[in-house]
This record gives sequence, C-alpha cells and structure tokens, in this order.
Amino acid sequence: MKSEIISIGDELLIGQVVNTNSAWMAQELNKVGISVIRITSIADDHADIIKALDEASERADIILMTGGLGPTKDDITKLALCDYFNSPLVFDQPSLDNIQRIFTLRGYTMNEINRKQAEIPACAEALVNIHGTAPGMAFRLNNKVYFSLPGVPFEMKALMSDHIIPMLQKMSDKVIIHKTILTQGVGESFLADKIEEWELSLPSYIKLAYLPQPGMVRLRLSATGTSKEILQKEVDIFIEQLYSLIPEYIFGEDDDNLETVVGQILKEKNHTLSTAESCTGGYIAHLITSIPGSSSYFNGSLVTYSNQSKVQTLNVNPHTLEQFGAVSGETVIEMAEGVKKVFSTDCSIAVSGIAGPDGGTPDKPVGTVWIAVSVPNKEIQVKKFHFGEHRVRNIRRSALAALDMLRKQLMND
Amino acid sequence: MKSEIISIGDELLIGQVVNTNSAWMAQELNKVGISVIRITSIADDHADIIKALDEASERADIILMTGGLGPTKDDITKLALCDYFNSPLVFDQPSLDNIQRIFTLRGYTMNEINRKQAEIPACAEALVNIHGTAPGMAFRLNNKVYFSLPGVPFEMKALMSDHIIPMLQKMSDKVIIHKTILTQGVGESFLADKIEEWELSLPSYIKLAYLPQPGMVRLRLSATGTSKEILQKEVDIFIEQLYSLIPEYIFGEDDDNLETVVGQILKEKNHTLSTAESCTGGYIAHLITSIPGSSSYFNGSLVTYSNQSKVQTLNVNPHTLEQFGAVSGETVIEMAEGVKKVFSTDCSIAVSGIAGPDGGTPDKPVGTVWIAVSVPNKEIQVKKFHFGEHRVRNIRRSALAALDMLRKQLMND
Repeated sequence: MKSEIISIGDELLIGQVVNTNSAWMAQELNKVGISVIRITSIADDHADIIKALDEASERADIILMTGGLGPTKDDITKLALCDYFNSPLVFDQPSLDNIQRIFTLRGYTMNEINRKQAEIPACAEALVNIHGTAPGMAFRLNNKVYFSLPGVPFEMKALMSDHIIPMLQKMSDKVIIHKTILTQGVGESFLADKIEEWELSLPSYIKLAYLPQPGMVRLRLSATGTSKEILQKEVDIFIEQLYSLIPEYIFGEDDDNLETVVGQILKEKNHTLSTAESCTGGYIAHLITSIPGSSSYFNGSLVTYSNQSKVQTLNVNPHTLEQFGAVSGETVIEMAEGVKKVFSTDCSIAVSGIAGPDGGTPDKPVGTVWIAVSVPNKEIQVKKFHFGEHRVRNIRRSALAALDMLRKQLMND
Repeated sequence: MKSEIISIGDELLIGQVVNTNSAWMAQELNKVGISVIRITSIADDHADIIKALDEASERADIILMTGGLGPTKDDITKLALCDYFNSPLVFDQPSLDNIQRIFTLRGYTMNEINRKQAEIPACAEALVNIHGTAPGMAFRLNNKVYFSLPGVPFEMKALMSDHIIPMLQKMSDKVIIHKTILTQGVGESFLADKIEEWELSLPSYIKLAYLPQPGMVRLRLSATGTSKEILQKEVDIFIEQLYSLIPEYIFGEDDDNLETVVGQILKEKNHTLSTAESCTGGYIAHLITSIPGSSSYFNGSLVTYSNQSKVQTLNVNPHTLEQFGAVSGETVIEMAEGVKKVFSTDCSIAVSGIAGPDGGTPDKPVGTVWIAVSVPNKEIQVKKFHFGEHRVRNIRRSALAALDMLRKQLMND
C-alpha cells in the first residue's frame, strides 16, 4: 500500500515552521509496511488543497493531511474537504462533548468559534482528539482512504497512534516487525565497523537502519514477512548477538530513553537521586522529572550557575574553586558530595563545564565538561569530556553522558 | 514570481531526515519577495523526478531542487536532469578544479567516482560549491529557471546565499515583508475574537496567520507589494493598532522568545534571578540557561521535588505545607522568598503544581499549578493556573506562564 502526506499551512511555505510532522508520520507509516511516495506542503488555499488531493489520489491508496483545522479564518481545510467530498458540514456530538470537556478542564468558557470546531463533513468519520478541540477525520472514496489531522504535533501524534495506525494495520496483509536498540557514547562509523560482520549476516528480509541523534545512535531492525511469530524469533536471535557484540554501548530498547532507564534502575534498587548542575542549567533535572512517577526516586537539584552559589549551597571549598577552577574534576566531586547532603539522597550527579559560545580558554575550550557520579558503596566516578562548540547540543550531550555514567555505575552494583 | 522546492531523497520519505533544507530555503526566498507555493519531497527515482519537474514548471517560475547529487549509485538527480533538459553530460573544468582543491585540502586522493562529480548537463550553468564536491547547477527553459543543489545543508546554504539569491533578486519586481507578534496567556480563538474587527480591516495584500505553539500563539502579518518602504509603513500602523488592542498578551516580535525577552529585561534593569521549581523540575532554569550570557543575571535554581527539601533548602514552614499543601499560594510565596535568600538575588520565580498523570485530587486536579513571582519594591505576585492533563505540556505551559508573569512584573516597574 502506498501513501502520501499533504501538509497544509502557509507557515510551512514561508519556512517559519519546519515540517517535523511529516517525518514522524512517515516513520510510523513505514513501521507498519506502508511506504510514503510523496510529501507535499501547500498553502492554506482552497484550490491548492483540492488540486493536491486530486493529484495524490491518482498515485496513492492512503492520503494523510495535516493542518488547517484551527478555529480561525485562515484555517480552511475543512471547507475544502466538504467541497472535495461533496458533503455538507454537520455537528458531531462526540466531538462537541470533547471540546466541552477540554474547556471545562481548563476553566474556560466555550464560544461560538469553539463550538463550530465540532462540525465535520457529513461523510466523514470523526476521530476524537483527546488533546485538542479539532477532531481528526477519516474519509473513504473510490477504494482510497483519506485522513485529515490537526497540525499541532502532539494532537496529530495521538490521533495517528490511537486511531489511524490501528486502522491501517487492519487493512494490510504484510507483517513488519521492528526492534530498536539504543546506544550511547559511540559514533555511527565506529559502530558500523564493530558490527560489520553481524550486519552482513542479516537475511535480505531483515533490514538494519542507523538512526543517529545528538548524543546517541539507534539501530533499528525491520523484518518483513507473513508470520509474526517466526519473524520475532529470528529478530530475537540477531538482537541477542548484538548485545554480546557491543554490551557496553547499549542502554535500552525501542521507546526507552536514558531518563526512563535510569529511573527504573533507581526504583528497583530503592535508591534516591539528586543533581548538582552548572553548565547543564537544570536540563538533567528536567529530563528526569519529565518521567511520570519520578518523585519516588528524585529528590531535587541544585542549579548553581555562580561560584558563590557552589560554595554557599553545595558547600564546595572556595580553595578548590580557586586552585582548580569551577570546571574541574575536584569541583564536580565536591558538588556531587554536597548535593547528596542537601537533598538526603544516596546517589548524585554533578556537572560543570563550558557550554559556550563564550567562556572558553586555551586550557579549557568551549565544550570541556567534567561530570561526577556518586552511588552507594563505590568511589565517586569522575570523567572529563570534550564536546563541540554548540551551546544547546553541549547541554544535551552533557546530560546524556551524565545519565549514562550513572546507569553504568548502578548496573555494576 | 512564484517558486517551488523539490526535495529529493529516500531518507525524507522514510522519515529518517527532517526536511529542514526546504524551510530554510523558503525563508530566504520569501525575504527577497519570492513566494514558495509548494514544497514536494520525492524519492531518488528517475520517473518521479521528471514528473515532479513537469508539474512544478506548470505552476512556478522558479524551481529549486535539492539532493541526489552525491557520488554513489543511489544519487540519480543529474541523470534525470540530462533527460529532462535533453542535454548530455560534459566535464566542467572549474568544478573539477574545485574538487581537486577540496581533496588536496583534506589530504585525500581523488578517484574516478569523485572526478565524475565534475560532470554536468551541457546546458547547465555550474555554480561552484566551495564546501563540497557536487557543483550546483542552474538551467533556463521556456522562461523558467531551475536550480539543482546538493542536499548537505551547509553546502546548499552557501550556494543559495552566494549564487542563487543574488541571481533571483535581480529578476524580481515584487516585495514581501513579514512581521510576527508573539502572544502568551491567551488561546487562539479568544485572540481571534479580540482582534476580529482589526483583522477585517486588513487590506487584501496584507494577510494574517495564527501560528499556535504550546503555551503561545504567534500572529504573522505578510504584506505583498512593490515598495518595501510603503509596505513597512502600513504594516507598522497595523502592528501599532495590535499593540493597543492586546497589550497584555504581547511579549515579543519575530524570533524573540520569552527566555530571551526576560533575559534582556533582567540585564537592562540590572536584576538577578533565581528559581524554585517543584513541578517544572528544572525546566525554567533550563530555558533561561539555554541563552548565551545568562550567567550574568541568573544565579541558580533549587528544584525541590520533595516536601522535605522545600523545608530544608528553601526554608518553607512545615506548618504551611501541612495546612495548605505543597500546591498552594502560601507555599509558592515562601518558596519564592526562600530561593532569593539562597542565591542572593533580587528577583525570583517559584512554581508548584501537579504535572500529572498521577497525583491529582478532586480539589487539586492534574494541571493545577501555583506560581509566585517576586521583583524588587513590589508585593509578591501569586497566580493559580489550570492547565491540561499532559505532563510534558503542563511543564512547558507552567514555565512559559511563569516567565511571562516575571516579564510583566518587571515591565511595570
């Protein structure tokens, strides 16, 4: 089955918004064996929408649209769909109930514009958008299926995962299974060298993809066939081989991320964590507390941006700062010790570095980061890293490196 | 003049790469008055490339392609261009010299595959790619102009800035200007109600777009005409009217964001800031410290996830927690007072709330958030918010609401 994605919105055509929606959707569609043959971005323009739908339905079986479903005048996708499918707008009660629920929750009063968001073309099937007021819609015409989704990424994603992907899976006769292995602390080309023989041993119906991200590389196996059981067994064997080849780099699978993996280990081992952050500026705490239930193992963080605050709140010795500088192994050790006492935890992470773009010196250029990790019954571990020149990337890479150090220290308990 | 962008590459259609090139190109084209009417992503497929070129040249005057110019077998754009323009491949000496220069620079030896990158269709004008081995190309046919560029972002960008934009500027007679106003603390539909009359008063050549993001709505005016000066004056008048209509919601313009705006005000007024974060878990500190130079006004943050840490580190009265709970106006006031003392700052933000998905009660459902903001010579300001059910969004909305409260308090000094 072939699909096309039509992204609707003037903001895409002036480059104000990068089209991340279509990349995410393409990933999800490919996972269930539906190839995407074209992605088209067009304006919030009636004629353009009709034209794009006409063209896409000549090439594809499944057409997915995003955007243009907001309550304001510039959002005209719904009217274009009425014309395209020759179907009048009608009120959809479940959609209206959903809008009402959201407004009650937020403590706002609904106005006429909001109410009108519950209108959909009569021939459409409404897909309830639990995160927003614009319902998703499904249409069928001439053996083709069409979906219209809001452009707000998390609303679109929920509608895709809850409604559309399950619907499309039922329509397909092919089975595709995926398994993703997450690695940290190793570059793509180095990884490729290490697993070259293993990669060559994969049969033609099991494909490997390298998916690099700042600070990590994901390895995804995709197996295509007719029996889920057989494919699963084969993939499991290859994954087992991979674990024995590169055990030191693998930190998780599929939708794991370092913060969930670290959280699970802390929970299982009944540990508590605190963080002392200088250059990461609270980002490690943010990652950890993004996980529901993190309050059971995370007590708190001290973001100490000034030297003074390192001394006053973390009890770092002023002489240490003077002699070795804030960005040093000696300082992060004292920060890691100090923060454990402040928050009464048995584990801690401390980070100090030069995120940039300013503040670098010949001795300590931008990207120099010291990380200390403390866990019970072990000496504090300290490491020095050299990241790049890009501030936001340095912050992210420091945070991931710190979480991975903690993970390894806890695993070796 | 109308343009279209055709992005060529299998990696775009499986979602492995987000198409950031086309957004950047669209921005640059719009800046010089060339509107982009469509962006199309297609596979590295001969027939698809020819088809896309055919279609685009029916609609647009300028067609820009990226991708598929690499030295490997899967890169077939150049051969497709030979067919489309009915022109054989010939060696281009300046391109060959450029490849030779790059290989000498990197200390590599050129092979036949690299040499072949200097071949271009005979009818093309070569555009020297100083950063890479694949030359850019310009074609003219039936009063249309076509460009083919490598997909590597920094190579494409240099070719656009050095060659293509200057060429197009000479060809254009239309001017487009954009102005974006950033609002916080108000939903899209309420905003639409508030500015309906103003919106209706806009002339047909000035278009308004609503661009919602979690926690903010951007309003963009786009004016098209022939004189930049006249358009700018008109847009300025409408923007001024907008400021007088919704002054309380506007926090910035164009590429501003709340963390940069707040940072500028703190710097100008010579204030220092600290934050005490419960449910936001360090995210406010992270936003603030993402900005280069934030160390001059941001001293630090205390992320106090447990009640105990609120008492011990922020000196919150245990009776306050007992009587009113951690999520209360009383508690955030004491947190805001406490954190100023810890970090010796004259301004502070304190947040406590229930980010979810668990922890809600009938009295204090998930999404209930209390924020306190303290600035010099004013009483502490406290507000209660009701956000949604989604943890990560609640964290983001809380952070933006807190920064906006601080901004307003500082503006009213």
